[in-house]
Amino acid sequence: MAFLKVIPLEEALKIINLLPLEAEVEEVHIENALGRTLAEDVKSPINVPPFDRATVDGYAVRSEDTWMASESEPVRLKVIGEINAGEAAEFTLNKGESIYISTGAPLPKGADAVIQFEDVDRENNEVVIYKPAYPALGVMKAGTDVSANKPLLRKGQRLGFKETALLSAVGFDKVRVFKKPRIAVISTGNEIVLPGKRLKYGQIYDINGRAIADAVRELGGESVFLGIARDEKENLRELILKGIECCDIILLSGGASGGMRDLTASIIEELGEVKAHGIAIQPGKPTIIGLIDGKPIFGLPGYPTSCLTNFTLLVAPLIRKLLGGSYEHTTTRKKLAYKVFSVKGRRQFLPVRIEGEKAIPILKGSGAVTSFVEADGFIEVPENVEILEEDEEVEVILFGPFYS
Amino acid sequence: MAFLKVIPLEEALKIINLLPLEAEVEEVHIENALGRTLAEDVKSPINVPPFDRATVDGYAVRSEDTWMASESEPVRLKVIGEINAGEAAEFTLNKGESIYISTGAPLPKGADAVIQFEDVDRENNEVVIYKPAYPALGVMKAGTDVSANKPLLRKGQRLGFKETALLSAVGFDKVRVFKKPRIAVISTGNEIVLPGKRLKYGQIYDINGRAIADAVRELGGESVFLGIARDEKENLRELILKGIECCDIILLSGGASGGMRDLTASIIEELGEVKAHGIAIQPGKPTIIGLIDGKPIFGLPGYPTSCLTNFTLLVAPLIRKLLGGSYEHTTTRKKLAYKVFSVKGRRQFLPVRIEGEKAIPILKGSGAVTSFVEADGFIEVPENVEILEEDEEVEVILFGPFYS
Repeated sequence: MAFLKVIPLEEALKIINLLPLEAEVEEVHIENALGRTLAEDVKSPINVPPFDRATVDGYAVRSEDTWMASESEPVRLKVIGEINAGEAAEFTLNKGESIYISTGAPLPKGADAVIQFEDVDRENNEVVIYKPAYPALGVMKAGTDVSANKPLLRKGQRLGFKETALLSAVGFDKVRVFKKPRIAVISTGNEIVLPGKRLKYGQIYDINGRAIADAVRELGGESVFLGIARDEKENLRELILKGIECCDIILLSGGASGGMRDLTASIIEELGEVKAHGIAIQPGKPTIIGLIDGKPIFGLPGYPTSCLTNFTLLVAPLIRKLLGGSYEHTTTRKKLAYKVFSVKGRRQFLPVRIEGEKAIPILKGSGAVTSFVEADGFIEVPENVEILEEDEEVEVILFGPFYS
Repeated sequence: MAFLKVIPLEEALKIINLLPLEAEVEEVHIENALGRTLAEDVKSPINVPPFDRATVDGYAVRSEDTWMASESEPVRLKVIGEINAGEAAEFTLNKGESIYISTGAPLPKGADAVIQFEDVDRENNEVVIYKPAYPALGVMKAGTDVSANKPLLRKGQRLGFKETALLSAVGFDKVRVFKKPRIAVISTGNEIVLPGKRLKYGQIYDINGRAIADAVRELGGESVFLGIARDEKENLRELILKGIECCDIILLSGGASGGMRDLTASIIEELGEVKAHGIAIQPGKPTIIGLIDGKPIFGLPGYPTSCLTNFTLLVAPLIRKLLGGSYEHTTTRKKLAYKVFSVKGRRQFLPVRIEGEKAIPILKGSGAVTSFVEADGFIEVPENVEILEEDEEVEVILFGPFYS
């Protein structure tokens, strides 16, 4: 029988933070970079635009050639050619010359302005200009949008569509991102059945397996749901070994019975080491932290809300860390919608729903599925507190969004 | 040459809403349901829990048998058996009897309470009870968490981990979701090059292709980036036909040149119908809406911020609709961080960044890549307005989050 080591939450978080697990890096094509997390700071290797670029269709000129132009005494410049977007032709403008240029094309040498074609007249090979052009009119200078070596994105940043577009804009077709940690998920308990099967009397459908497997994915990890272990040593041991083989982290959620937890602890102690057995919080007493072959294994409570609360408190920080993000909890400050009573001497976490600036406690008992489904996160009621007052400011630890 | 049909934004939205495109439905396994959008309202087919369930390890009793119990005169009940979680054994308790029951197991007939084993003594085949138990002590009644036929989730709702867990809890292994609309993305322009290639003088890297392809994915659609079309009829026509073949919607983003837009319009008119050519907003003049073989095709502006703004105004509502969501824009109300000047007679959309309750205008010109990268959305400056004052309340149309 595994020794019971009940420890404070903070000690559990230290133990987990020290687990021998490092963020790993891989290179992916920009086509597959959406939703991944950057593994390095990114600077722009180039200027955007890389050259002085026309922002209108019109005539590239030396602006000083136009400074005497007026409605009554227009300036006439010779049109010596045409530059289209994407053409590499390298013209040079001399005094008294202009070139027809289309939007996006590079300015010829000597030119410093582009006058819109609507504002001039064209007469054979001359353009007639009625108004002075100032330098840089109709031009986007090289590097004004993004300058070479400008820091663009930070390590640990999640790549949304704006970030992948920015990487594309500066020419990256590959990007170094953190490898998705692979997480094995196992549900346990004789009464638990996979959805789609017919329930026999005394059975209930699996909740935690699906919840944790998908919460891991929303966090940016990869999950492998290995199914349900019966309350029986060989079966559970087999699934744990399968998890060790395929994944970086193993997550079990306990069946309702206490025997299951002892079983889990004793298997971990046989195969590796139990680091903690019980966290001094409610819910969380049944939680186990272990290490097998350098791979963390967590036994989480069976009640869905307790399971998700402990997952969010203990496992989510580790997954975020492996994705180059913060080990800290994701929190927000809200005002409690109504008075909450707790038991003195218990450090309790209560699910809450957020509505505007209010945190609304959901009091259905930890067994209720719907309490975590309705919750956005949970609040702490410290050990020495019996009452949280209405309108008291509380810190909500969020189930999600996992990225902010 | 295609006829120029400049129309107001509202008319464009009506045209798009009337396009002959219907949301389609498919069935997926619950394992693959995360992130998908429900295609039907879901009610619970069962009670959760399906039976009266012990919430502690202890002794199931008829509570009235214990009402006389006290410290000095404890009640003794005969223990007639044991029920473990997941066991289907159907005991019946008679007067004076009790059964050892573990957490999660179904209550035997006749029993209405479970007394925790820590609160009693066991002496051979008798349990010694020192305190009355009230009915429902230690019991979660059938259906108290979720009752059969209770509406659980709504059509059009996105399935996060909480929703997939709830579906699992009530036994669904399959779920009907909206098919992801398939969207072909084509960038156009002679100056545009795919990232990873070496830039020649006068060329710039593709931005819009990546931005739109990934924005579509974040919206829940599927995107196929077909690459870059040269400013040349056969090449563009070929890619458009490829898009028609593989996808439900085709999105082009214009190269910088005006010629490209005319080309696009004339190809659409050859192959199908141009519904609009130009929207009376800034940016948006170059936007084209067409229909080929019943498939919508959009020509979006070439400037990245203009492109994304028009995508958000015109295409995002359609994609949301095809995913069973709202055709309306996703908006939020904020206060303008500083005064903004516009041109009278122009209906303008300006990118803004959101910080707390403030909307901060990003004024870099529509050509800047980084202006849309930094933006969270954009605000409208109506046609007859020249100045928006500091602290004025504005409605921000959001680029994202796409689900709320």
